[in-house]
Amino acid sequence: MKNILVKEIYRETEKHSDQMIQISGWIRTLRSSKAFGFIELNDGSFFKNIQVVFEENLDNFKEISKLSISTSIVVEGKLVLTPGTKQPFEIKATKITVEGESSSEYPLQKKRHTLEYLRTIAHLRPRSNTFSAVFRVRSIAAYAIHKFFQEKGFVYTHTPVITGSDCEGAGEMFRITTLDMKNPAVDEEGNVDYSKDFFGKETNLTVSGQLEAEAYALAFRNIYTFGPTFRAENSNTTRHASEFWMIEPEIAFADLNDYMDLAEEMMTYLIDYVMKNAPEEMEFFNKFIDKGLLDRLNNVVNSDFGRISYTEAVEILKNSGKEFDYPVEWGCDLQTEHERYLTDEVYKKPLFVTDYPKDIKSFYMRLNDDNKTVAAADLLVPGVGEIIGGSQREERLDILESRMKEMNLNEEDYWWYLELRKFGGTKHAGYGLGFERAIMYLTGMGNIRDVIPFPRTPKSAEF
Amino acid sequence: MKNILVKEIYRETEKHSDQMIQISGWIRTLRSSKAFGFIELNDGSFFKNIQVVFEENLDNFKEISKLSISTSIVVEGKLVLTPGTKQPFEIKATKITVEGESSSEYPLQKKRHTLEYLRTIAHLRPRSNTFSAVFRVRSIAAYAIHKFFQEKGFVYTHTPVITGSDCEGAGEMFRITTLDMKNPAVDEEGNVDYSKDFFGKETNLTVSGQLEAEAYALAFRNIYTFGPTFRAENSNTTRHASEFWMIEPEIAFADLNDYMDLAEEMMTYLIDYVMKNAPEEMEFFNKFIDKGLLDRLNNVVNSDFGRISYTEAVEILKNSGKEFDYPVEWGCDLQTEHERYLTDEVYKKPLFVTDYPKDIKSFYMRLNDDNKTVAAADLLVPGVGEIIGGSQREERLDILESRMKEMNLNEEDYWWYLELRKFGGTKHAGYGLGFERAIMYLTGMGNIRDVIPFPRTPKSAEF
Repeated sequence: MKNILVKEIYRETEKHSDQMIQISGWIRTLRSSKAFGFIELNDGSFFKNIQVVFEENLDNFKEISKLSISTSIVVEGKLVLTPGTKQPFEIKATKITVEGESSSEYPLQKKRHTLEYLRTIAHLRPRSNTFSAVFRVRSIAAYAIHKFFQEKGFVYTHTPVITGSDCEGAGEMFRITTLDMKNPAVDEEGNVDYSKDFFGKETNLTVSGQLEAEAYALAFRNIYTFGPTFRAENSNTTRHASEFWMIEPEIAFADLNDYMDLAEEMMTYLIDYVMKNAPEEMEFFNKFIDKGLLDRLNNVVNSDFGRISYTEAVEILKNSGKEFDYPVEWGCDLQTEHERYLTDEVYKKPLFVTDYPKDIKSFYMRLNDDNKTVAAADLLVPGVGEIIGGSQREERLDILESRMKEMNLNEEDYWWYLELRKFGGTKHAGYGLGFERAIMYLTGMGNIRDVIPFPRTPKSAEF
Repeated sequence: MKNILVKEIYRETEKHSDQMIQISGWIRTLRSSKAFGFIELNDGSFFKNIQVVFEENLDNFKEISKLSISTSIVVEGKLVLTPGTKQPFEIKATKITVEGESSSEYPLQKKRHTLEYLRTIAHLRPRSNTFSAVFRVRSIAAYAIHKFFQEKGFVYTHTPVITGSDCEGAGEMFRITTLDMKNPAVDEEGNVDYSKDFFGKETNLTVSGQLEAEAYALAFRNIYTFGPTFRAENSNTTRHASEFWMIEPEIAFADLNDYMDLAEEMMTYLIDYVMKNAPEEMEFFNKFIDKGLLDRLNNVVNSDFGRISYTEAVEILKNSGKEFDYPVEWGCDLQTEHERYLTDEVYKKPLFVTDYPKDIKSFYMRLNDDNKTVAAADLLVPGVGEIIGGSQREERLDILESRMKEMNLNEEDYWWYLELRKFGGTKHAGYGLGFERAIMYLTGMGNIRDVIPFPRTPKSAEF
């Protein structure tokens, strides 16, 4: 008998109705009396369980009646429609085989657990409703991103994780080494001799693939990256992880508006795709995690994103009458409290803030004609804050070089990046989407640790 | 005037025929006489160039005539069909604007360059025909993998890159640290005190996501990973890189045959998808890189993969009459020369070799009833050797524990992995596909450094 997936039964019920079928999965709940019992079985292929009814005519009725939650079993039986009851159908078991036993020590018993506790059993938590929903949505969202860009002809580019330059400037980095930590090779002056290290130089984990992405955009025109990035910052917040995934599209012959148009189209596509392809999971989040989630997401899909300049944003914040922990002045970076005020209270939808002061932004962002601001834009979303940061890139070699001087960057470290401006540079733009923040936004989950299968944060690298 | 992509012109020629259009891209070649000139323009969206004809009626005819290769330009003009000539159509330019200049110093002049030289200009090499083809195929192949698994309902799982266990055993690892290398924190005994390190313990770059993947397969049934993995081995071969991407599917309620069926279906899908979606690139490889490539790939799509046991393979090798550098005896690991003999000379198609001696395989592979071999299988392909390694996993707790003892592994390090066998374990299986090796196989490229955008190998981490 062919083993079929529970998802298939839900999606093509008619086809299997009144048929003998075989399924396998893990027991989520089991109730039994002397003569019969009910099992809620989950086979991992689908968010919902399927009900299995078994009766005393089974050879092993007694054994089955006593099984622990999370035991894996194989069930043969007839699929019977049960209109008018809580579940649309059930399986009347003719045979149940135990595949792998469990015990009363199984940590995920039916009672509610805190998210904090569930993090300590990250190997088991995807078997709970919440994390089953989170990580299936994460998978579907990742695919939506690929589908969106591939259908537009963007080239998926694997930029390196190990980087030989410490010049990326986007944050603190992790060192990679194979030197003996206790007795590293040293040079004549007694300094650690990285020429003896694995790569013959100092190496770190990347904080961004952007610079390499630019090289590829200037060959393929439209490209995107999707890979892990790292920050060695000792910040314990609900929105920061030491290891996270980022999507970094880069487009040539394109300016800041082209980037914003693309990012808006991508976000809308992503939300729409996930709502259509994970309806049960999204319903669950809406009901149990974040009431109002679906309304909010639907609203995003059906409305244009806002676009205001940083200068306008500062005016709004100053005139808000709100007491912020960090007072706002033109020239300062926007804090989460400011971003949340703009999205959650003023605009109530995703909002691009553009043209930031050059002094608080990176050297590679294109200088505006006012000489004070750069053609950068961040996308802020209600409930989360910044999820996208991007800019038009400085394609004018002389201005780029003088910006690097201002910021005390060493031109030699960037020789190839500068060459991109010498040999057929074009206006181009790009952005980075923090994938985990997008998942938080899509699911309503409030802590980044709960949208990464095995999160890495300061002092924590379990599993 | 809307800027359109060259790919669109090739794919929907009729729609644009005799229309005024605008395109932008980089000059690949330029020939000019006193009265007119020809530009081969590549805009990155498509493997092929488009021909632009310009005449002296252009205001800037003289300037355009002298442009260097790789200059980026914007062209307006009429698309004219040119049946009977070398190219199917050309653009008669009415206006050409220079977007970014280049110069005679541009390193990618028209003459042929060695692949070794091109590696030193990894930021520019995707602008050459060969690497344009390689990296577009890489992108399309990556998408094919996602599409294949997603359409089957597999959950894409991001396993961690930073790992806190040095227990993966698949190879040498890179250490990750934020300790001061010159004066690391030390404990009372003078040893490096990793409790002071960023994660509060020793951490390394992962060599495989398999163990975590198993946890997710026992929740979602069918999952796959696709991410970077690392080996700190000092091996300078054409098939090894320090950083490479791996796809690791893991399937529950499944055995060794299920894995082989899945891997065969995936490989066939991948090859077929790439041939259909990158026909120009594959034609190029067939003509210039590896004559006979398309025949070989077509042959794979249309025939079943071979399956033989290790024991049979050893017999074939011993009876081959061939002189191998490494003599073959039952119990030894197969070398590349052995694998290549089996695939290239005997079977001439992909071949699974199954049931290897337990002593040369990992502790987690399921012990066969003969107590001598394990339910492992490697997929070998002609021209490349091993590209997939996989196995059924040991789901029996007692046997797993005794295998770990035999191999001197510390059970405490694997507490959560062992728990997967305590709480509803199932038979399950999985494999790892080296993505770069798959790309080498698909393109005929002979060096792994030439299928990774910015390769990392011993003593080399440029860009």
